[in-house]
Amino acid sequence: MATPTSILLYADSAHNSDQLYFGRISVPDPFISFAIAGKKYAIVNALEFARVKRDSAFDVVLPLETYAQKAMERFGKFGRLSPAETIAVIAAEFGQKSFLIPEDFPAGLYARLSILHGIKLEPTAGPIFPEREIKSPSEAAKIKEGNRCAAIGIAAAEKVLKESKISSGKLMWQRKPLTSERLKTAIEIACLEAGSLSIDTIAAGGDQACDPHHRGTGQLRANQLIIVDVFPRVQATGYHGDMTRTFLKGRASDFQKKLVATVREAQLAALKLTKAGTSGKVVHNAVNDTFARHGFKTERTEKGSVGFFHGTGHGLGLAVHEAPRVNATDYILKAGSVVTVEPGLYYPGQGACRIEDVVQVTDAKPKMLSSFHYNWEIK
Amino acid sequence: MATPTSILLYADSAHNSDQLYFGRISVPDPFISFAIAGKKYAIVNALEFARVKRDSAFDVVLPLETYAQKAMERFGKFGRLSPAETIAVIAAEFGQKSFLIPEDFPAGLYARLSILHGIKLEPTAGPIFPEREIKSPSEAAKIKEGNRCAAIGIAAAEKVLKESKISSGKLMWQRKPLTSERLKTAIEIACLEAGSLSIDTIAAGGDQACDPHHRGTGQLRANQLIIVDVFPRVQATGYHGDMTRTFLKGRASDFQKKLVATVREAQLAALKLTKAGTSGKVVHNAVNDTFARHGFKTERTEKGSVGFFHGTGHGLGLAVHEAPRVNATDYILKAGSVVTVEPGLYYPGQGACRIEDVVQVTDAKPKMLSSFHYNWEIK
Repeated sequence: MATPTSILLYADSAHNSDQLYFGRISVPDPFISFAIAGKKYAIVNALEFARVKRDSAFDVVLPLETYAQKAMERFGKFGRLSPAETIAVIAAEFGQKSFLIPEDFPAGLYARLSILHGIKLEPTAGPIFPEREIKSPSEAAKIKEGNRCAAIGIAAAEKVLKESKISSGKLMWQRKPLTSERLKTAIEIACLEAGSLSIDTIAAGGDQACDPHHRGTGQLRANQLIIVDVFPRVQATGYHGDMTRTFLKGRASDFQKKLVATVREAQLAALKLTKAGTSGKVVHNAVNDTFARHGFKTERTEKGSVGFFHGTGHGLGLAVHEAPRVNATDYILKAGSVVTVEPGLYYPGQGACRIEDVVQVTDAKPKMLSSFHYNWEIK
Repeated sequence: MATPTSILLYADSAHNSDQLYFGRISVPDPFISFAIAGKKYAIVNALEFARVKRDSAFDVVLPLETYAQKAMERFGKFGRLSPAETIAVIAAEFGQKSFLIPEDFPAGLYARLSILHGIKLEPTAGPIFPEREIKSPSEAAKIKEGNRCAAIGIAAAEKVLKESKISSGKLMWQRKPLTSERLKTAIEIACLEAGSLSIDTIAAGGDQACDPHHRGTGQLRANQLIIVDVFPRVQATGYHGDMTRTFLKGRASDFQKKLVATVREAQLAALKLTKAGTSGKVVHNAVNDTFARHGFKTERTEKGSVGFFHGTGHGLGLAVHEAPRVNATDYILKAGSVVTVEPGLYYPGQGACRIEDVVQVTDAKPKMLSSFHYNWEIK
């Protein structure tokens, strides 16, 4: 029988999704956690002790103060103490001389533990918990709930656009200019009321939408494509949704109509190929081929890239971006993975469109975990 | 003249506040940035290029694809490529063999760069940008704006409690049970409408409030102390506010009255001593002394800690928790620092209170950067 691997983490779990996955509890400040012989340990201070002991998935919760005190007695005379000295004390007590660590383990601790304390730390090549990629039915349900929230956010944006009036080419809502900021606030309030937190919401129109990570700012206008991308985190579980729809208020040009239809066609082509055992590259190439067939070129210009210049999708779960990536990399999709499928086209001066849904990969047709209609022209 | 220090970062700037401070732009995925000879560089992909070039504080923005291609040509035959290989190419082009790195630099990259590429990386002992501790007038104004938002959130909570009715000891609002979740949603909507995002909001009553990091869940009750802690991030700037008030709906007991009065007295004692040149320990001890004088004991019990068992305050800025800490550590306060002052007392079975404001340290009286009244009994 193989010896279970010993793992060491040092991170908060409000931001670090590995730490959250490991202990299933949100702690705002960095703390030490480890697995030895299949048991999960956390070392936390008095502020967190009772809550972590009661609510987490850790098998053993140890008081930080006790170990920090031991570290002080043993290493205090050498100057500044860091969590490295506490870890050194613990490693000695457990007779443990080496740990696997995640790639994002803090280098300051790594250096101190390796150089000063002779503990061998080995960063993993890739995720420390590769099993995170495969979502259980319960995890898939939590992501579906995230997408229910995302759809509520997108519906809120659609409602605002429906209620808006056009005045000299500008959108007006409730008698005031409709800005990206106001549209995002409407989305974020709807997400909050649904039980989720939408951070870095995108509601960008016109040329701003041609920059896929531009969140959008200022006046929104009629007859321009507006990308609405919402990736809320469900407050109760920490799992995310991630959906994008592109709207237009007013009248669409022939170019805009062709752009949107082609992006949707590319999404359907990608969805058709998304299956366990297929390379993400094959899925990504189906998107590229659809765009090429309709004459939409991807190129790098002096002012930036145009066409399709991001991946087709990414894993979704406790992090908004996690394994796997669905892009030009040759990576075989696995049953149980949850990925976004989000082709997009971006042409400054003419407009941009992205359509994004979330699926769970199976051995056959992918299982849709998001649901919202694809009507985009709002008169 | 000293050679300017060369610094290397690899982080996203949506979560990592050093990367945000360095480049003054929010980028959701990790990217390489560095400073050589006083110039700031960022290396970003096509998705981010135009926006970072236009909106950031980086002097030079380089396309990731170009350097990743060079890394592939040079190192591709050795197997898996990581950002380490891209950094190695850049270091060679700039003739740079060593960098200072922040303590939270990813250990995976650190190990690859040190061991495979012979680049000497030195983690700083403490912050990589110690100058972040001192806030300019413009930064102080941004934190004040964060606290304006926090106060709006707290006012929203107060309004809900005022509008609530008591039914068999339970709080009812708009004819439905008032839960911590509903109270937090009211706070978070108010913060959003004010232009900020309140994450991990705390609205915890009774014994839940005795756990300082418990966010609060379920039914809120009459005659119990409810801690409301709001630390929103202003969307436009990334700076935070951080305020806490403790409320009670119904009738307060003599113990509760004494508890709240003592916490406020301790806060005033701490504020009086908060001054450049004073040790944070002196400020923290003033809080301890106030509590001891009124007979409030701090101790560790079987079921967790009671009394006062966290720091008196922490630095506030682009991160909710940053340098300096105001606690038992002997750390001299500097003019220009912005810190919270937040004593608290926690007694399961009897109740908890925390009161938190934010000040900028000066050579004389601290400058208040937060403002909200201290009335807490709501009939």
